[in-house]
Amino acid sequence: MEPDHGTRPRPPRRGALTRRLLLGGAAAGAGAATLVGADALLRSSRPDAPAPADDPGLNGERTVAFHGPRQAGIETPPQAHAKFLAVDLADDTGAEKVRRLLRLLTDDAAKLTQGQAALADSEPELAFVPARLTVTFGFGPGLVERVAPDAVPSWLRPLPEFATDRLREEWSGGDLLLQICSDDPLTVSHAARMLSKDVRAFGGLRWAQDGFRRAHGSEAPGTTMRNLMGQVDGTVNLEPGSADFEELVWGRRDNPAWLRDGTGMVVRRIAMDLDTWDRLDRPGREEAVGRRLADGAPLTGEHEHDEPDFEALTPLGFPRIAEYAHIRRARSDDPAERVFRRGYNYDVPVAGDAGQDAGLLFVSYQADVERQFVPIQRRLDELDLLNEWISPIGSAVFAVPPGCAEGGFVGETLFER
Amino acid sequence: MEPDHGTRPRPPRRGALTRRLLLGGAAAGAGAATLVGADALLRSSRPDAPAPADDPGLNGERTVAFHGPRQAGIETPPQAHAKFLAVDLADDTGAEKVRRLLRLLTDDAAKLTQGQAALADSEPELAFVPARLTVTFGFGPGLVERVAPDAVPSWLRPLPEFATDRLREEWSGGDLLLQICSDDPLTVSHAARMLSKDVRAFGGLRWAQDGFRRAHGSEAPGTTMRNLMGQVDGTVNLEPGSADFEELVWGRRDNPAWLRDGTGMVVRRIAMDLDTWDRLDRPGREEAVGRRLADGAPLTGEHEHDEPDFEALTPLGFPRIAEYAHIRRARSDDPAERVFRRGYNYDVPVAGDAGQDAGLLFVSYQADVERQFVPIQRRLDELDLLNEWISPIGSAVFAVPPGCAEGGFVGETLFER
Repeated sequence: MEPDHGTRPRPPRRGALTRRLLLGGAAAGAGAATLVGADALLRSSRPDAPAPADDPGLNGERTVAFHGPRQAGIETPPQAHAKFLAVDLADDTGAEKVRRLLRLLTDDAAKLTQGQAALADSEPELAFVPARLTVTFGFGPGLVERVAPDAVPSWLRPLPEFATDRLREEWSGGDLLLQICSDDPLTVSHAARMLSKDVRAFGGLRWAQDGFRRAHGSEAPGTTMRNLMGQVDGTVNLEPGSADFEELVWGRRDNPAWLRDGTGMVVRRIAMDLDTWDRLDRPGREEAVGRRLADGAPLTGEHEHDEPDFEALTPLGFPRIAEYAHIRRARSDDPAERVFRRGYNYDVPVAGDAGQDAGLLFVSYQADVERQFVPIQRRLDELDLLNEWISPIGSAVFAVPPGCAEGGFVGETLFER
Repeated sequence: MEPDHGTRPRPPRRGALTRRLLLGGAAAGAGAATLVGADALLRSSRPDAPAPADDPGLNGERTVAFHGPRQAGIETPPQAHAKFLAVDLADDTGAEKVRRLLRLLTDDAAKLTQGQAALADSEPELAFVPARLTVTFGFGPGLVERVAPDAVPSWLRPLPEFATDRLREEWSGGDLLLQICSDDPLTVSHAARMLSKDVRAFGGLRWAQDGFRRAHGSEAPGTTMRNLMGQVDGTVNLEPGSADFEELVWGRRDNPAWLRDGTGMVVRRIAMDLDTWDRLDRPGREEAVGRRLADGAPLTGEHEHDEPDFEALTPLGFPRIAEYAHIRRARSDDPAERVFRRGYNYDVPVAGDAGQDAGLLFVSYQADVERQFVPIQRRLDELDLLNEWISPIGSAVFAVPPGCAEGGFVGETLFER
């Protein structure tokens, strides 16, 4: 049976509230966050009295609702830290064991995100600072095939090969993805440990990737992130709460019924050759992207969010935004070819001259990976000056199931068909 | 010639101000932080008007003074993120090249910590969010020997071998250490990249280690950190600004004259076997440490900062705090055998069942490593139940030179003798 999240009258849940508030802009997300009930016994350094209404409280105490028709961690304003864990299910992990695993993970994720210890939490005190922790589940083809082989979305498979790909097995694929995000790195570490332990009887960790953005409190809310090449990255993006977002991220397209209120997810590890990038002068870099480095404005505009003018010409008659510029190649004439990006920087310390293995964890959400993401990537693959300095070294595609109500589990719709 | 930092009348510098404020407790450190002058051209998302006096401003805009008689990053209330870079100097990097390297690093560190781009900054916009960035220099024996072979402090050498050590070359030693700390992970990444590039003509990176604590805004200021075993870690510590701190961290002891207003530094990578630790029950863990997990109170006390009663007995006549308990072994009868700890957690993502290579970056400052740190470590090495679950896998000792005034460079006293 298909769940009726989409049609039954929704109680004024936190999740719904969050979405409504998000219509007002990114900053509203923080307003929707709630304070965890204090546990004076265990958190002796905190006052017992609830914070007054005009006191935003500690960011560490903020929670994002776990239960709801859709999973958190997508519309949620991006937290500072993310860990992506990809699981390979063991050969003997069939549908019934997958169900048990998902129930276990759901129960622990529901607790941890609300600032409570996991069921068998070995370090419960580390759970008491949620700092907007979210845990988002994605299903690889290997998981869906085990449970409902006739309900695999057509796009749930490895992306087509691109000429610029330098993919490595150890950063690609996976049967189950856990995206763990919080403003606090210790919270992410603890949640990842608890959830990894849940997985052990059912499979092993295929890869783990850490990412970061600006810390909470570093910049004004809503500031577009910069990547490690120094570029403002993510200016043109779908707006959570907008009609476009509803259609292009949460829309049904031709997805199987169990994916109602779910979406598709692409995770790519994109290595940056920062040393050669650094040899390029500033005008050269701006031409490669088509935006000014200082403020992210298109080369034809004044402000970051100005619409680029792709027809504009230089006095010599050349396009102001070059044919090979990243923003021109990333843009489609077809408004359906858009995705929602929610990526993170990565920077792994290494010995040696470079001292850095760095790049971008590209993460995008879209209802149909094949129709929305692939055409963009194909254009970038064919021609994008940025390709000189970046190489995709990991790639994975997941289906993001809907959320669940209390008592349910993420992925239940896959079993209830 | 020896610099006269210690005697000449000090102008009301930020560094001195910070230290005075620190006498009032850890929270005062934030008050001493200053706002970076806005650069409206480059940071278009920020208002031009200065923040009103009662507005603490964005944490990302806070700076810690770089110049001053003592280096920042020691008394500075610990930032959320740290990167430790150890450099091996090239064979042909003699005294004169060391001087050039230190001047280069000083100039860039001075700029970056104040939220300004480094001299040849390839991504200047990434420098504009200092978030209390500090860069602290430490000199290994290899550097001091090149410049002043007769002025190597007696304790500046590898620590004696301890029975529980499982040291690995790749995490040990180093000629020059850069401790880079900020509340923002992108700031740390950028500063580390800029400073690493300065080093290239003079040597290579021997090791790089990333660490984290709770994020800014996660907990009330002054909350003692927890390590990944879940323990409150660092309750008994020297208090910046106290007489003990002055004597045991900044005190001269028998140090050479160039180390006046400097100190000694120990960096140890301590791996935790969290899986076996997790098998121990809660009372067993509390007995191993001698403190309650919930609040860090000693087993004989009520509150975290209560003095442990090592004489107290159970009804059966056994010590309440066991002979093998960590806090008993770490304590010396000689008050001179104390150090200032300023460590960080580490958690490196790895594939496989554990999914975690985790532990503690133990960092301590003390005027005399041999007389203060070694006796503590010897007692812990001989008997400490925690040794069952932890293994030192990296170890390095550095001399921390004094700070410098504007126009000078960190380490100048080594050349001015």
